[in-house]
Amino acid sequence: MRNILIIGAGRSSSSLIKYLLDKSEDENLHIILGDLDLASAEGKLNNHPNASALQLDIFEVDQRRAAIKNAAIVISMLPARFHIEVAKDCISFKKSLVTASYVSPEMKALHDNVVENGLTFMNEIGVDPGIDHMSAMEVLDSIRDRGGKLLLFESFTGGLVSPDCDDNLWNYKFTWNPRNVVVSGQGGAAKFIQEGKYKYIPYQKLFRRTEFLNIDGYGKFEAYANRDSLKYRSVYGLDAIPTLYRGTIRRVGFSRAWNIFVQLGMTDDSYELEGSENMTNREFINSFLAYHPTDSIELKLRHYLKIDQDDILWSKLEELDIFNSSKLIGIKNATPAQMLQKILMDSWTLKPDDKDMIVMYHKFGYELNGKKEQIDSQLVVMGDDQTYTAMAKTVGLPVAIACLKILNNEITKKGVIIPIDKEVYAPILSELKDYGVVFKERKVPFLGYNSENIS
Amino acid sequence: MRNILIIGAGRSSSSLIKYLLDKSEDENLHIILGDLDLASAEGKLNNHPNASALQLDIFEVDQRRAAIKNAAIVISMLPARFHIEVAKDCISFKKSLVTASYVSPEMKALHDNVVENGLTFMNEIGVDPGIDHMSAMEVLDSIRDRGGKLLLFESFTGGLVSPDCDDNLWNYKFTWNPRNVVVSGQGGAAKFIQEGKYKYIPYQKLFRRTEFLNIDGYGKFEAYANRDSLKYRSVYGLDAIPTLYRGTIRRVGFSRAWNIFVQLGMTDDSYELEGSENMTNREFINSFLAYHPTDSIELKLRHYLKIDQDDILWSKLEELDIFNSSKLIGIKNATPAQMLQKILMDSWTLKPDDKDMIVMYHKFGYELNGKKEQIDSQLVVMGDDQTYTAMAKTVGLPVAIACLKILNNEITKKGVIIPIDKEVYAPILSELKDYGVVFKERKVPFLGYNSENIS
Repeated sequence: MRNILIIGAGRSSSSLIKYLLDKSEDENLHIILGDLDLASAEGKLNNHPNASALQLDIFEVDQRRAAIKNAAIVISMLPARFHIEVAKDCISFKKSLVTASYVSPEMKALHDNVVENGLTFMNEIGVDPGIDHMSAMEVLDSIRDRGGKLLLFESFTGGLVSPDCDDNLWNYKFTWNPRNVVVSGQGGAAKFIQEGKYKYIPYQKLFRRTEFLNIDGYGKFEAYANRDSLKYRSVYGLDAIPTLYRGTIRRVGFSRAWNIFVQLGMTDDSYELEGSENMTNREFINSFLAYHPTDSIELKLRHYLKIDQDDILWSKLEELDIFNSSKLIGIKNATPAQMLQKILMDSWTLKPDDKDMIVMYHKFGYELNGKKEQIDSQLVVMGDDQTYTAMAKTVGLPVAIACLKILNNEITKKGVIIPIDKEVYAPILSELKDYGVVFKERKVPFLGYNSENIS
Repeated sequence: MRNILIIGAGRSSSSLIKYLLDKSEDENLHIILGDLDLASAEGKLNNHPNASALQLDIFEVDQRRAAIKNAAIVISMLPARFHIEVAKDCISFKKSLVTASYVSPEMKALHDNVVENGLTFMNEIGVDPGIDHMSAMEVLDSIRDRGGKLLLFESFTGGLVSPDCDDNLWNYKFTWNPRNVVVSGQGGAAKFIQEGKYKYIPYQKLFRRTEFLNIDGYGKFEAYANRDSLKYRSVYGLDAIPTLYRGTIRRVGFSRAWNIFVQLGMTDDSYELEGSENMTNREFINSFLAYHPTDSIELKLRHYLKIDQDDILWSKLEELDIFNSSKLIGIKNATPAQMLQKILMDSWTLKPDDKDMIVMYHKFGYELNGKKEQIDSQLVVMGDDQTYTAMAKTVGLPVAIACLKILNNEITKKGVIIPIDKEVYAPILSELKDYGVVFKERKVPFLGYNSENIS
């Protein structure tokens, strides 16, 4: 039996565990699921004969090292900042490692050491980052293999609620970490490149500079720019590309309404509100409005942000119950972002039967044999329920597949890597299709942004 | 002869030097003006018999220590971050110290040591901070001495161009460090308290939440909120006050136009623009606008920020020549804020005969013998020319006066202090009147912000 140690039995581990358990008989695997919470780990394993749960505190060095030593390969599903100690032990005991997280500078620094030990530390193999890398590189490489020259790459990803459970005015529910949604876009201007021109959008305008997207069978979406669209420019081999843009997908109208919170200052996570523990929803919103002894909060807000009374924006705010004067938010020393998150969670938490959805959209513009062409590639993955969510599938399945392929020496590249090589992405994307992770590609006319195409 | 060492012969030192030279005969003073640039120091002294210039590099420890050792008292006009080494040497050689800068945590930490050595380290004795502290405390103390209870304190300061040289549409020129103007208000939400309610204004709304002020004989002004209006709440003894607000004064309309730069993201100082050294004014503004092959930058901007073609905002932008497609800004690796500063300096630099102006406005609301009353206190100081500017006078004169009074044991308070005690502010404010720094006080009806006063 080959031991696979999975550290972390959180929400994103379900599809990963199921995949490996389903293969355990044929592949001669024993799954050891380590978590601080033993019951949680046991619950995920459902007494499977080829699995065991382990009470594991990764800050207990001896425990952690013993668990890693005992494994044939390690998967870390911990929050990204905790990977590094696991990674160092993996080097000590010569074990390969798989994570779905961004490569941290500390992780990157281990590269030579990992290579010397003949190991593979595969990272960014979940979803955004992960499936986006692989599906983009597959099309980019095929265009380049045919001699094409890349002119445009735009890539969009979103985690949303499935259309059949989409029953609020925002067309949005939290399907992942709510905090990341509340602070999304902060920390600096969004940067991208269009027709060779660098473009910058400050946070205060980010949600007013959206693009529309149509996804076959699912209708119209919008996307706002990610902070650094150029992060993978060199990694993808696109240094000379004139248009490069990455964005986050929402349903149309979300961003315009979200902009209200941005403008009010409610998404700020950098300071604590005075007396936050005693604030009602209504008092919270009033802290961002001018004082007046008699004017209503409603009128002050409408005037401040110039919202017409019959604008759908207003109904969106009312739906969140933000004007409620008796509902206590009840968090001590809270930042505005924490208070807003609490209010949103009261409205945007998935109901027990709600399902989520992952959507991804790539656009590849290129010139081939003197002709400009474009390929659009779309992915829609639906969650089955709240265990096997679209998020758990798209994060966990590529992790699981990569893990097994490394263990079986089908992926042989050494070092601290991400899945951008054909040897890695081709077999994984191929197998993902069996699990419903299927990109639909089609050729569309290349429009670009240039005058010859403007009517 | 008593040696006064002044470190730093910059723009703000002129009135300070003149004051001390004028007193040098009667007070038996010898002024030693130390600066990295000897010629600059010599130029400021004009061969005065009671003064000498010193080439002084404060990072040369021996040089610095020798200069301090040789002084009876030290004035540091260095940028705030450089005071601390001077301060430590002042303790070693038992010399008192005067600065116009905010008390840094490092400076504050010296307090006990300064007291033990029987010294006075007087800080924040220029203008904002300085004259604002003293003039506010004088009125606050007098209200409290009469048994009044403070209900409201609002304090506003601005450095502007004198009305007779006010010849641009913005009614603004740089009279002090342009960089501080460009990044003003950044770094967190503005916080203040109104009628007992804490209020927060995020940067993206700061310039749209102004108040109007009338200054006798000078017309209408506006003010936007300082970042932390509550900084001196305890220091001023105002812990229980329901309304506390501090702001920065501009001419009416400045903030609404400045908001264009904020919304575009042009005031951001946190990242560098790609290829900034080759950008024209027009390309700079275009980096913050959506790409389009044919739409003009003018129309894109108007549409983006919803500016009517006949709005005065537009003329203000044109006056700055920001649409010029042949004018190179020409700064390498520049942040947006640095680029904007350069464009503004081309328009807002004082002409040789231009004069500056300092305006200050305090409002004190209080209850006395069951009656609510208000005192408004206004200061206007005009620059004489570009040497004896209003800024140099209001910064330098209180520094000089305090220095001499410490030297003459008229100010005896020990430790790291700011001028909030009557013993300190009363004689200084009194002497400042001889130099034209005169607050005009008058009683006005107390309106406050409560419903009983709303018609």
